[in-house]
Amino acid sequence: MYRVAIMGASGLAGGEILRILANHGGFRVSLVTSASSTGRPVRQAHPHLAYAYRDLTFSPEEAVLEGEWDLIFLALPHRKSAPWIRRLMPLLEGGRRLVDLSGDFRLRDTEAHRRWYGEDPAEDLRGAFVYGLPELHREEIRFASLVSGVGCNATAATLAALPLVRSGLSEAVLQWWFECRVGSSEGGSVPNEGGMHVFRSRTMRVVSCFSHRHLGEVSQELRIPEEAMSLTVTSVEMVRGVQCLLSAPLREPLTEGDLWRALRSAYGTEPFVDLCPPRPGHMRLPDPRLVLGSNRALVGFSLSDDRRRLLVGCAIDNLMKGAAGTAVQCANLMFRLPEEQGLIMPPAYPA
Amino acid sequence: MYRVAIMGASGLAGGEILRILANHGGFRVSLVTSASSTGRPVRQAHPHLAYAYRDLTFSPEEAVLEGEWDLIFLALPHRKSAPWIRRLMPLLEGGRRLVDLSGDFRLRDTEAHRRWYGEDPAEDLRGAFVYGLPELHREEIRFASLVSGVGCNATAATLAALPLVRSGLSEAVLQWWFECRVGSSEGGSVPNEGGMHVFRSRTMRVVSCFSHRHLGEVSQELRIPEEAMSLTVTSVEMVRGVQCLLSAPLREPLTEGDLWRALRSAYGTEPFVDLCPPRPGHMRLPDPRLVLGSNRALVGFSLSDDRRRLLVGCAIDNLMKGAAGTAVQCANLMFRLPEEQGLIMPPAYPA
Amino acid sequence: MYRVAIMGASGLAGGEILRILANHGGFRVSLVTSASSTGRPVRQAHPHLAYAYRDLTFSPEEAVLEGEWDLIFLALPHRKSAPWIRRLMPLLEGGRRLVDLSGDFRLRDTEAHRRWYGEDPAEDLRGAFVYGLPELHREEIRFASLVSGVGCNATAATLAALPLVRSGLSEAVLQWWFECRVGSSEGGSVPNEGGMHVFRSRTMRVVSCFSHRHLGEVSQELRIPEEAMSLTVTSVEMVRGVQCLLSAPLREPLTEGDLWRALRSAYGTEPFVDLCPPRPGHMRLPDPRLVLGSNRALVGFSLSDDRRRLLVGCAIDNLMKGAAGTAVQCANLMFRLPEEQGLIMPPAYPA
Amino acid sequence: MYRVAIMGASGLAGGEILRILANHGGFRVSLVTSASSTGRPVRQAHPHLAYAYRDLTFSPEEAVLEGEWDLIFLALPHRKSAPWIRRLMPLLEGGRRLVDLSGDFRLRDTEAHRRWYGEDPAEDLRGAFVYGLPELHREEIRFASLVSGVGCNATAATLAALPLVRSGLSEAVLQWWFECRVGSSEGGSVPNEGGMHVFRSRTMRVVSCFSHRHLGEVSQELRIPEEAMSLTVTSVEMVRGVQCLLSAPLREPLTEGDLWRALRSAYGTEPFVDLCPPRPGHMRLPDPRLVLGSNRALVGFSLSDDRRRLLVGCAIDNLMKGAAGTAVQCANLMFRLPEEQGLIMPPAYPA
Repeated sequence: MYRVAIMGASGLAGGEILRILANHGGFRVSLVTSASSTGRPVRQAHPHLAYAYRDLTFSPEEAVLEGEWDLIFLALPHRKSAPWIRRLMPLLEGGRRLVDLSGDFRLRDTEAHRRWYGEDPAEDLRGAFVYGLPELHREEIRFASLVSGVGCNATAATLAALPLVRSGLSEAVLQWWFECRVGSSEGGSVPNEGGMHVFRSRTMRVVSCFSHRHLGEVSQELRIPEEAMSLTVTSVEMVRGVQCLLSAPLREPLTEGDLWRALRSAYGTEPFVDLCPPRPGHMRLPDPRLVLGSNRALVGFSLSDDRRRLLVGCAIDNLMKGAAGTAVQCANLMFRLPEEQGLIMPPAYPA
Repeated sequence: MYRVAIMGASGLAGGEILRILANHGGFRVSLVTSASSTGRPVRQAHPHLAYAYRDLTFSPEEAVLEGEWDLIFLALPHRKSAPWIRRLMPLLEGGRRLVDLSGDFRLRDTEAHRRWYGEDPAEDLRGAFVYGLPELHREEIRFASLVSGVGCNATAATLAALPLVRSGLSEAVLQWWFECRVGSSEGGSVPNEGGMHVFRSRTMRVVSCFSHRHLGEVSQELRIPEEAMSLTVTSVEMVRGVQCLLSAPLREPLTEGDLWRALRSAYGTEPFVDLCPPRPGHMRLPDPRLVLGSNRALVGFSLSDDRRRLLVGCAIDNLMKGAAGTAVQCANLMFRLPEEQGLIMPPAYPA
Repeated sequence: MYRVAIMGASGLAGGEILRILANHGGFRVSLVTSASSTGRPVRQAHPHLAYAYRDLTFSPEEAVLEGEWDLIFLALPHRKSAPWIRRLMPLLEGGRRLVDLSGDFRLRDTEAHRRWYGEDPAEDLRGAFVYGLPELHREEIRFASLVSGVGCNATAATLAALPLVRSGLSEAVLQWWFECRVGSSEGGSVPNEGGMHVFRSRTMRVVSCFSHRHLGEVSQELRIPEEAMSLTVTSVEMVRGVQCLLSAPLREPLTEGDLWRALRSAYGTEPFVDLCPPRPGHMRLPDPRLVLGSNRALVGFSLSDDRRRLLVGCAIDNLMKGAAGTAVQCANLMFRLPEEQGLIMPPAYPA
Repeated sequence: MYRVAIMGASGLAGGEILRILANHGGFRVSLVTSASSTGRPVRQAHPHLAYAYRDLTFSPEEAVLEGEWDLIFLALPHRKSAPWIRRLMPLLEGGRRLVDLSGDFRLRDTEAHRRWYGEDPAEDLRGAFVYGLPELHREEIRFASLVSGVGCNATAATLAALPLVRSGLSEAVLQWWFECRVGSSEGGSVPNEGGMHVFRSRTMRVVSCFSHRHLGEVSQELRIPEEAMSLTVTSVEMVRGVQCLLSAPLREPLTEGDLWRALRSAYGTEPFVDLCPPRPGHMRLPDPRLVLGSNRALVGFSLSDDRRRLLVGCAIDNLMKGAAGTAVQCANLMFRLPEEQGLIMPPAYPA
């Protein structure tokens, strides 16, 4: 089994990688670090995994420089990753691999990075990363040493729009209006007033009106100019889950047939993307409850009677398909393990 | 004090009228009917009001024909109201008034009624009703004997779009895409599988993609053709509350100033409509939590940097401003009572 | 109208006093202070009250020394109140009144205060306060200048047990096991990890096993030794609300009749305490949802078939009857206003 | 792989068995029946499993009489199971096995069955079943052809109390007061008013005061007379999850050491029961959030300072360890598969 190190392992994404690797079979966790919890047992930060990691303790971050690992996940905050990656570069010899879940290396273009994240700490390393969405870059990921993670909203938006782009239907789209409804785990676990249950509970707070940072990724991956897109984000009552609805006014009418072909063609062989059945009623657009705890993405669409307005929806678990799950999926590819290994846990529904 | 009868008083809207009238001062409840709960005490259907209606019991519906009342609210299901109103018409002499909360008389046009509700049971009575949204029809309501209630989603959508229509800015709007996120009380209290907590909890279920029935009201009141509008409805985790976001691609750029003037002009003197402050950040678009339990509506907007995409939001408590609250507001007007009487309860927040 | 100052007005309890006083009629807010929000508008901390306090701004705390007020509420954290009260003492002449919502002066006995809160900052002032639960001390409150607020769990526990104590049935009780289930607003609004939605949501976290601080108040008011009582507190998914269940093994059998007489005798004339109806089924023990946003307390009981085990429940809204509502109820008494003034808002249910 | 039939597969427990068997490896689903959904695809009743059971359709119940299966699960309502089991008895030859999740055969004593469930439909078969809790009857289950499922509250209560009983500490217990807080999935999916989200959401409804039906199982398994026990059940806001707190006044003081030894001795080698760590603070008693979606049980305790009051808690996912998970765990034993097979999915937390 390959040995795995995880930096930032006391956070939500780190915990989710630990959850997946508890039963993976191809990877085993050999080192976890946490700047804030050094020396404390993993079960304290992740009590739900106490049974699986009885004796594992968070090491100081420096331990990765000496530690024995074949694969390293960085689940660090934005801007904390880049300096560490620079220090780790010399170690990435002999088949070692790195997956970075932060936003530091998602954008290939330094100008775009500056626009969304501020100053670029690592312009020189930017080109070395592959964007870690297997549905888009499977082959590149297989041969990559450095893979960046994906934004959760970006994943949902990209997977909703991809079939249109791939099939050439995007020509018909006048405007790309993505609307994400997100759970509280998207905001991380660092205490802040807006995240307090007393204020966050049952809210419908529009936290981003037009220009969410993840738009940079969507634009890069779909090759649609940022100006043609909006990304509205609303916090709703849920812990895990992103539902992205793409509302697209159409320049020219599309047909149901066009759209089905586009979706089937894009996702027919994808192991983790499922299509909502083409039945009338409420299941045409996907509900993130149906993928809770799993690495699955659900995609569906609805076309107006006049065929000039289109809704495409994508639902994921933001900690899984929107972060840790996709990261492990990439790692499986990088180490030539079966792509689904360790990721077959079915959704817990109703929950 | 005027005497009030309520038909369908064991349901959610009926209960909310009872809640308001418990402390109104100008109206007192003299008769409540319920087909399903005849003979049972009010406190059984509405245990939260046990202290206020200790001895009141649901009468059979026929009792309204004999009962002593000056004002009658009909909180019956769609299609149940029309036949009763026909029977009540002869009684509406000498200053008696009627407010119907169902969908039976919201649409003035019989053709539109057929399109959204099926066969028209009362084409001849249709013209006798005033649409009961004081923000649009205050003066007509004052002089009306028959007032129809409003749809909750329609109220939120209409109040979001009204400032644009009134100020002439609607010319700039290319498409009216209303998106409502609604709580479970919108679905009523009759048991059904989709409404069961185990399935409804924390859902993000898109229950209507483009053409919700309330679009008929919005079209009628704003004089915008139905074809130019979409109304998407998503069930989210909340009991009370509607948040309507109007996403409008613009034909020509607008300015923040234009929009503020439009909102202030529309609502500057409205007793129950408040504007979100023009500060940056998450409070520009309204959250229904902030109006919970009250008759208030919150309206706000956000304009994209390129000034070609507009979001306008309206948040209400669907049982209050979206149903019972507005109905009592109308009744106050009809009886020349202060418009705010009995409706000043502040929102319960955080709750 | 009497002029009211509120210290600590940017917090949850302060906001709730503002909510009540928005429509009180006998009191009007003339001064609000906040150490953390000095200079900022009230509507920023309490956006749901923006319409009611358009121009009010938080003053620095020192302003209370000069300000014009007849009544002052202190909604400060524990240990912050006592020093301010010492400074305010000289001002409490000529009919000025003070209500302190903190825990600093709830316990009359300095030894008990030390046990539960640590060092006693104001032993000399302790005797000057009346414990502000009108159901226990109505007459003393009428004549008091200094009233302490009540703990929310203590209020629920005390109101559950009071009928037994008053009627002499407490002799039959072998052990007083109070179990409170509480919403997140009980924890205040200061950010902390445990209060973050991502961790707090849907939790059933037992935060206190036997000895919650509020036990000191319950013991003092009911004159039951602390050793005979347990107070278990569990955080559950709710924002507002406390449900206290008293589980009492009985030394000798009681009868339903005994218990009804005890409850009726204790609360028959209380304006804000209601009894659950003596029907079989799930409504015998009270649900805090039924009092949400109101100042009401619901009390009910259930006796086992062998009449040797007793459950008594009390449900309140912790911010209202458990804090701000009871504080205003006391203030009404202190100023000889009708006890219910400003507190008649009915519960918002279902919400 | 063994072939599995599931009766009542469109319900919550049936769906959960399907979820587990989607990745089991030792069992594969060959037949599912549903009286209400005959002929409909599985993905309609269980949309979260659409990807795993693309073409499976519900057969009529009669199909089990002809169908090819090695193992049959009955996830039918109480009283529906017994008649079917009578018809299936002749088929249980040659190594076929049956697990019944209903309450029809949990109680061995026909008198007890009558007391809790009404008339006994199958007195003659009662002795043929083994109570399907591996923690109590592992060896008998291995050799059984007929295993009954367990009640979810009974499982939580039994696992909380078992260490005391096994270690002889139960002598010290004066009274067994079990208090369960349960999610909405415990109530099943058949529509009813109390289960509607609008009423069920955020409730704290005491649905059973002293005598819940599951007490019969607890009494039978722990050999404690029913009269010595109470089982209070409160519905709280959660979909999955049972938390059982046992509050026990003690006849004589116990020590922390006694209790730890009792818990370790009872569960030290159990594959699915974990102990809360003996640290001070809120993690001593278990939260069902920490086991969501998994087959794990968490057990913890807290002893009062005077060592005369004891709290023991057990948290499970009611659909897993409280129903389908334990049923599959039994099936693994019956077929000599590894006991944990198919049940290793880790809890989804935070969710």
